[in-house]
Amino acid sequence: MRRFYTSTIIVLLCTAFTSSPGQDTHSAAPPDHLFGFFPKSVSSQRTHEARALNLVSPGSPERFLQDLTREPHHAGSVGGRRSAEYVQQMLKSFGFDSRIAEYQVLLPYPEDIRVSLLEPEQKTLRMKEDVEFHPNALIPYNAYSPSCDITAEVVFANYGFSDDYAKLREMGVDVRGKIVIARYGRGYRGLKVRDATEAGAIGMILYSDPADDGFMAGDVYPKGPMRPWDAVQRGSIRFLESYPGDPLTPGYPATKGAKRQSPDEDPDMPRIPCTPLSYDDAQHILRVLEGPVVPRAWQGGLPFTYHIGPGPAKVRMELTMDFQTRPIWNNIAILKGTVEPDKLIILGGHRDPWVFGAQDPNSGTAVLLETARVLGDAVKNGWKPKRSIVIAQWDAEEFGMIGSTEWGEEFRDKLRKDAVLYINFDGSVSGPNFGASAVPSLDHFIQSITKDVNDPSTNTPIFAMWWKNQNRSRLKTLEDVIPENAAVSVGRIGGGSDHVVFLSHIGVPAMGFGFGGPSGIYHSYYDNFDWMKRFGDPEFKYHATAAKLAVISAMRFANADILPFTYGAYADEIAKQLRVIESRLRDHPSTDSLILSSVLTKTQRWKQLADTLDRSLFQQQFEKRQANAINAYLMELERLFVPERGIAGREWYKHRVVVSSGYASIGLPGISGALVQNQPETLREEVLLFEAIIDTIIDRTGKLLATIRTAKN
Amino acid sequence: MRRFYTSTIIVLLCTAFTSSPGQDTHSAAPPDHLFGFFPKSVSSQRTHEARALNLVSPGSPERFLQDLTREPHHAGSVGGRRSAEYVQQMLKSFGFDSRIAEYQVLLPYPEDIRVSLLEPEQKTLRMKEDVEFHPNALIPYNAYSPSCDITAEVVFANYGFSDDYAKLREMGVDVRGKIVIARYGRGYRGLKVRDATEAGAIGMILYSDPADDGFMAGDVYPKGPMRPWDAVQRGSIRFLESYPGDPLTPGYPATKGAKRQSPDEDPDMPRIPCTPLSYDDAQHILRVLEGPVVPRAWQGGLPFTYHIGPGPAKVRMELTMDFQTRPIWNNIAILKGTVEPDKLIILGGHRDPWVFGAQDPNSGTAVLLETARVLGDAVKNGWKPKRSIVIAQWDAEEFGMIGSTEWGEEFRDKLRKDAVLYINFDGSVSGPNFGASAVPSLDHFIQSITKDVNDPSTNTPIFAMWWKNQNRSRLKTLEDVIPENAAVSVGRIGGGSDHVVFLSHIGVPAMGFGFGGPSGIYHSYYDNFDWMKRFGDPEFKYHATAAKLAVISAMRFANADILPFTYGAYADEIAKQLRVIESRLRDHPSTDSLILSSVLTKTQRWKQLADTLDRSLFQQQFEKRQANAINAYLMELERLFVPERGIAGREWYKHRVVVSSGYASIGLPGISGALVQNQPETLREEVLLFEAIIDTIIDRTGKLLATIRTAKN
Repeated sequence: MRRFYTSTIIVLLCTAFTSSPGQDTHSAAPPDHLFGFFPKSVSSQRTHEARALNLVSPGSPERFLQDLTREPHHAGSVGGRRSAEYVQQMLKSFGFDSRIAEYQVLLPYPEDIRVSLLEPEQKTLRMKEDVEFHPNALIPYNAYSPSCDITAEVVFANYGFSDDYAKLREMGVDVRGKIVIARYGRGYRGLKVRDATEAGAIGMILYSDPADDGFMAGDVYPKGPMRPWDAVQRGSIRFLESYPGDPLTPGYPATKGAKRQSPDEDPDMPRIPCTPLSYDDAQHILRVLEGPVVPRAWQGGLPFTYHIGPGPAKVRMELTMDFQTRPIWNNIAILKGTVEPDKLIILGGHRDPWVFGAQDPNSGTAVLLETARVLGDAVKNGWKPKRSIVIAQWDAEEFGMIGSTEWGEEFRDKLRKDAVLYINFDGSVSGPNFGASAVPSLDHFIQSITKDVNDPSTNTPIFAMWWKNQNRSRLKTLEDVIPENAAVSVGRIGGGSDHVVFLSHIGVPAMGFGFGGPSGIYHSYYDNFDWMKRFGDPEFKYHATAAKLAVISAMRFANADILPFTYGAYADEIAKQLRVIESRLRDHPSTDSLILSSVLTKTQRWKQLADTLDRSLFQQQFEKRQANAINAYLMELERLFVPERGIAGREWYKHRVVVSSGYASIGLPGISGALVQNQPETLREEVLLFEAIIDTIIDRTGKLLATIRTAKN
Repeated sequence: MRRFYTSTIIVLLCTAFTSSPGQDTHSAAPPDHLFGFFPKSVSSQRTHEARALNLVSPGSPERFLQDLTREPHHAGSVGGRRSAEYVQQMLKSFGFDSRIAEYQVLLPYPEDIRVSLLEPEQKTLRMKEDVEFHPNALIPYNAYSPSCDITAEVVFANYGFSDDYAKLREMGVDVRGKIVIARYGRGYRGLKVRDATEAGAIGMILYSDPADDGFMAGDVYPKGPMRPWDAVQRGSIRFLESYPGDPLTPGYPATKGAKRQSPDEDPDMPRIPCTPLSYDDAQHILRVLEGPVVPRAWQGGLPFTYHIGPGPAKVRMELTMDFQTRPIWNNIAILKGTVEPDKLIILGGHRDPWVFGAQDPNSGTAVLLETARVLGDAVKNGWKPKRSIVIAQWDAEEFGMIGSTEWGEEFRDKLRKDAVLYINFDGSVSGPNFGASAVPSLDHFIQSITKDVNDPSTNTPIFAMWWKNQNRSRLKTLEDVIPENAAVSVGRIGGGSDHVVFLSHIGVPAMGFGFGGPSGIYHSYYDNFDWMKRFGDPEFKYHATAAKLAVISAMRFANADILPFTYGAYADEIAKQLRVIESRLRDHPSTDSLILSSVLTKTQRWKQLADTLDRSLFQQQFEKRQANAINAYLMELERLFVPERGIAGREWYKHRVVVSSGYASIGLPGISGALVQNQPETLREEVLLFEAIIDTIIDRTGKLLATIRTAKN
């Protein structure tokens, strides 16, 4: 749906929720050291990893991607079924125990989409890419838009978020009863529809402005990687604020006989119609708008002065949608662990595209299939995973993370108990620039694997390129040597892809990574194999590199003596967020900042304990009994942030450190949500809940440290 | 040529040379107080001012502007002669002793201008606005471009300054032997031609990009005030680095029999041809450029991705210029003073446009004529100016401040002795937003007159609107009350208009002010009366307001008991600039920052004395003998910064605190120029010279203060 390395937009409290480029206390590791492995295990692990990495080749992800993108294979379609069978066949052939899991979910398809300009001149818009359409391809639409036949004057609302409507009100423009046209970008389209609805619009048009990912950002396809005049961004507009997944089965799996609510009962279901346009189509409407000239920052890249309206442009939207429950097919494949087979290292990503999906999502599918192939061969060559490795390909992510959510809901208890880690692969490659996001306990792990795999263009560690990209403005040349204590920022994992159910609903630590570059074919007909060969990754060497990182991640987490999580950074992150909220509380006469200070003090106490523990885990070797206790502790920690009771008003989401809103991540959502909505009762409850969580963590950590010390003495 | 309130661009040392919004120590003035007037004079002055302001009416500047803009009247033309006679007749009728002063100067006109795209496709460009041309109108061209017939591949160079060529070199693009196309904006076009020449280009094309002053900035004429597709910016490209004025008579007046050098001896004469284009024409060239995509900040507003080239675009430029010496006509009119008739308060501006020049320059002409009319009537009503008031209308400013420069050079000794102040009026009105620039000794005066005249739209003091505009981002609403100690930034007067000879060559304190707004008709056929009526000042109330400020300025400076200059701000400004240079010197191993510290210490000493004197002048009444001594001191002070020997390499420019480079102002140019050009000898000489200047000022100020104190005791 959305690439994980999309820069996180923080909606709340205006603070970037990213890891501080922290002190990597382990950077001076001796070469025979491997975090999470006792000295006696390092050599064997290193040998198996090296052998496995040698098996990775660019040729096979290229072949996988070519096979996967031969036909449209959106969720619920014939092509979708064929793609599931292809993946199933591949995973089986690699030695995985693989199966296809079906759910029945609400997937609206477009039957007929018409938009015409009626005034001040008549013009019927093209509404789709200017190509010979594959007979199975979906025409551009916004999934979950209601059907409609409406006619109204048009108002331009910039990116279409609530601050844009505030600006319109300030200018004296009323959107009530109007059709709003807004440009894509700066956040999740579902929230744009929500905000347009709140502002009183009766319909919405979303278009791609050339200033954002079109010709102003670079040459357009097929000359360059950016969005051409006729390319349309498809996409779901369910709000995803209450829950992702199947709209009819909130919180439980959409199996065949499951009880289903009516679509009207879904609070996230759009109540006004919305449809997407190319900029070639949108220009006909925008060009004839009158009323005030837009504020300078609202001017886009089309060759005329943008105006707000309303009118005289009058548009008719005729949308006919086919809301049906259709089957979707997840691939679930397992490579059984030999020592702790119950414990699961899950690598997943979605398989369903809007059309061909070469970049989004199937570059991720190709990486995962290559990962599975290599892990399978590693086992054939004698490697034994201690824990089980799951490779998953989700369906219907584009409609709202449906495949992953339904599966997560079905196996919630098992996953809560046994899932060690979830790594997401969604549109893993569109260029050479590495990016990653994670919960803070995985910051150190991600940095460490990028030191062990080279960037294929420069043959230097990915870590070095990552650091250089993040510090580009400060560097004189890219030949600059990176400093000893270099550290990178790992993004905080937000929303918009399949990790959400694992992290926010169940409490499984999650991460994602990939390689990005300039790209304007997102969710269009042109996200195809040809685009990837020309621009995204012509030699598939970044697909191969992503697979190497995936292979290393899986092999380390599967066989680590001590699971390679570190919690010092997590405590730091929470302390930072608490301070932001504390400063907000001070501006808030009705509430009391004192209640937070005790939580902050305790978090600082936890931070000391966590650092001590991190150092211990890094330096010491433990007996089996101790190692089991440590791993049990590490398995539990993230879960402590995910109590049974969810966040007020968004109960499905339970994680109290981070939650997604659209693509963005919001810190300490229980507390900050109550603060923003001015609910002092809830605020007090959430602070007390959070304090209890930190108390528990301090208790568990203290006890664990005592055990470790006792053992040492 | 260029409006005074164009934001000053500082080329050197990256420091904005503007007044700090300083402590206005005089803001608590009692209502019967008037800075520069003894208590006994205030009431009479206030009465005469109020009567005069009552005479100002929007109707007459409107009529003046309509009369002036009926036909093209560029320098040296039949229309130009007629406009001089019109102004002469008006000034006479207002009671001024008025005459027309003629010079013979080098004014190239265009004979034939052709540009065609030869490859990859053939296209002959239009080269002028899409209107029925007035038979006397100049077609678009860049004055002083040589004639040529050249054909070469094209390279796009963004704004065409040296840092753009540095970026091109970094990208591996060589402009040698190529025609460079660059967009207008961000600085003086003559310096673009100089930089293109240095980079090795053989020709240059300058075009107006719609992202800068075209449709991306607002609706285009005639729907809005911005630049339409076909409008071309004409303009001179002489560099003006060595001297302004007639290229053939540097430093002396271009009278009929004067000795003339050959144009080849002028170091500022462009050696490569250059011609301007509209964006409608430019798009044909830019669209077919290939080579690298431009850096993101270089992308303009035309609807395609910009590329650097070189080629495949190949262009033929055929320019035929008619270099001739032609007559120009200044208007000089005087209203004789009754007490000190030798002392001159000069209000000047240019009269020559590129075509009709409603905004640039004749809104200034209309304001000055209204000012003259009202001052003449004030005299008829019994007001007696103590000092003489000169109203001047310069010719051929557009070719390089020629009329004012030749006059200044002719009367240099007289002006050095007797000119009290020069106020410039160039394109005085294009909207409602007040702006001003000046030498620091006039900061207080400008602020004070804006407290005495109301903004005509809000009927609140101009000062309040000015402050609100400068603090817009910090205000919640424009209804906010302005704080007690509110202060505004006065811009530092740069280059590009007729004050240059007075300030930089002779040492006369100079200022300028006016009212700006969105405007994209600069130097095009569309800078006409219709534009002004639709957008610039439909009711001519800002013309009337500018005239009120001019009337007050003239009446106060003509009759002040003590000339209303303050020097505390001047010392501050110099200290700030010295600190910037000191920090630069520290990075400069070859020089010695110690030599500056003594100058800085002395400047701080001057600052103390200046503040003491400012306070004295504000609070005390003096005897006639003392007043004469004070005024003699105040007349001398600015001159001390302008020694006979000019700045190294730019000898015509002599002022050591500020110099223009294009439109920009550069602080402490003697010192900073030597620093930038790495001339340690010159640097030492300039520092010693500056120290001697400050020594003299301290001496003079100390002596004056002693006189005042002695008198008091």
